[in-house]
Amino acid sequence: MKIAALAGGIGAGKFLRGVVRVAPPEDLSVIVNTGDDREFHGLWVSPDLDSVTYWLAGVMDRERGWGLAGETFRTTGELRSFGAPDAWFGLGDLDMATHLYRTWVLSAEPRGRGLSAATRGISARFGVRPSVVPMSDDRIATIIGTTTPDGQNWDLDFQSFWVQHGASPPVRDIRYEGADAATPAEGVLAAIEGADVILICPSNPIASIFPILAVPGIRETLEARRDRVVGISPIVGGAPVRGMADKLMPAAGYGVTAAEAARCYKGLLSAWVIDEQDRNLAPQIEATGVRVAVSDTMMVSDEASERIARVALDLL
Amino acid sequence: MKIAALAGGIGAGKFLRGVVRVAPPEDLSVIVNTGDDREFHGLWVSPDLDSVTYWLAGVMDRERGWGLAGETFRTTGELRSFGAPDAWFGLGDLDMATHLYRTWVLSAEPRGRGLSAATRGISARFGVRPSVVPMSDDRIATIIGTTTPDGQNWDLDFQSFWVQHGASPPVRDIRYEGADAATPAEGVLAAIEGADVILICPSNPIASIFPILAVPGIRETLEARRDRVVGISPIVGGAPVRGMADKLMPAAGYGVTAAEAARCYKGLLSAWVIDEQDRNLAPQIEATGVRVAVSDTMMVSDEASERIARVALDLL
Repeated sequence: MKIAALAGGIGAGKFLRGVVRVAPPEDLSVIVNTGDDREFHGLWVSPDLDSVTYWLAGVMDRERGWGLAGETFRTTGELRSFGAPDAWFGLGDLDMATHLYRTWVLSAEPRGRGLSAATRGISARFGVRPSVVPMSDDRIATIIGTTTPDGQNWDLDFQSFWVQHGASPPVRDIRYEGADAATPAEGVLAAIEGADVILICPSNPIASIFPILAVPGIRETLEARRDRVVGISPIVGGAPVRGMADKLMPAAGYGVTAAEAARCYKGLLSAWVIDEQDRNLAPQIEATGVRVAVSDTMMVSDEASERIARVALDLL
Repeated sequence: MKIAALAGGIGAGKFLRGVVRVAPPEDLSVIVNTGDDREFHGLWVSPDLDSVTYWLAGVMDRERGWGLAGETFRTTGELRSFGAPDAWFGLGDLDMATHLYRTWVLSAEPRGRGLSAATRGISARFGVRPSVVPMSDDRIATIIGTTTPDGQNWDLDFQSFWVQHGASPPVRDIRYEGADAATPAEGVLAAIEGADVILICPSNPIASIFPILAVPGIRETLEARRDRVVGISPIVGGAPVRGMADKLMPAAGYGVTAAEAARCYKGLLSAWVIDEQDRNLAPQIEATGVRVAVSDTMMVSDEASERIARVALDLL
């Protein structure tokens, strides 16, 4: 059974650890959001690609969620002493090698192939058996349009909004800059077309999955395979399990419920997995033509992730 | 008393710790070799500038000589796991911040001003009171022309020759690529012109001082101030105290003695400090019109460096 997955960062990484306990890892292709990527200190950082890779490799810091186990932050500490403008973003000393390697590959490869090539190299170094591919080799930036206290428009890249400003500035709108002119990375459309099941991971719809769908060709390809698409709700009990989807969904015109998260994928979903807490929402989701499974969706362990993956895969 | 110093890396750094115990640090300008600089993993590394800065700041690893005290090498270890081609060069995790900062400034500043600006920022961050300036803001590469085992010409940048290949390939010649078209960094000529004493640090003449003299304008300015120039021999008892000058001096047409090291600066020196071990060489050096002082030149401590600095400064 060939599986394709659309993925953000930590939530996706946790879930995919369950998927590879149910299906052969080689049969999984993960298409990862790169709208959160940006340069820090001249290094190209791809937080979602790294989260997925580290979780699949089992080298992640499970408690913190992001980054590598046994990490230290000595370089970042020094950069703070330098007053470096990007030093609010903590890059670990082990993780730093990933960014140096990626930036080096990006400078060496022809434009439009670099991120895929770097991602393959990083996967290989960590022994990741699923195929991990960026949604695109072109640069796409998720921009959060916010408002300053004195009412001015204030555009922030996703990391500045979330990590530097703690998602506190009021959100006006969300844009995916560069998406219109982008093309899917090699292998992305083929993975969706060739999959028996396409999973939408329990990631932030607005910040993680919409950027993928904004790359021309991906939404259309997914639509054509709608009967094979299963998603897992990232919203449980009216709040995101982790992250700031509750700040972004209203600005994008969605309520913060498991049903509204399903509505984000209108026309794309065949089935949707929601948490026990949201059981009462099942009828209204099913009324939109989407089959619903109810399960405990808290991914507190690999065993829990495996159970949820099994529920999702059994839905078709 | 205004002092200018021409400096390489570790030997210069050790010596200059003595100079600032004798003279006000603010009155010292250090002009540093950049011929050993190169990119590693996309970061611009200036080993001699950093050695001088770290030694003057007192944050160096005294035992190892290079790099920072309390250093770790976690990123470099990871880069080796990636098979990164530059990972034979050990960049420390604390030191990494210096290279990230420098590379960031180089990308932000207009070409021809970046390295000076980065060096000022690094000096400020470490509280270094002397003025530390690169010999030039232009890129100059010390190239060691070597011979492969099967007799082919094999050009190596200085770090590849010294760190990667342990100075073992036979040396044919040494070139300072880019020097002809370079200009001295802002403040270099003024520091030499305005100094009461100009010190040539006990650095490798071929790898550290010749690149400085190769920048058009510096040799001429020094020649005009010859009566104020004092050098300290880096060669003691027919061998370099540290490093690979014994591999480079013969290829450049010099023997490996304290007298031959003085001859490297023919026409530029007023006085030359040699070690007790080389006392017998004093007459032949003095016969070339250079005054000689004999001292214990082993810089085993700051006190020893201070004594040698005092001898050098008292010579004029």
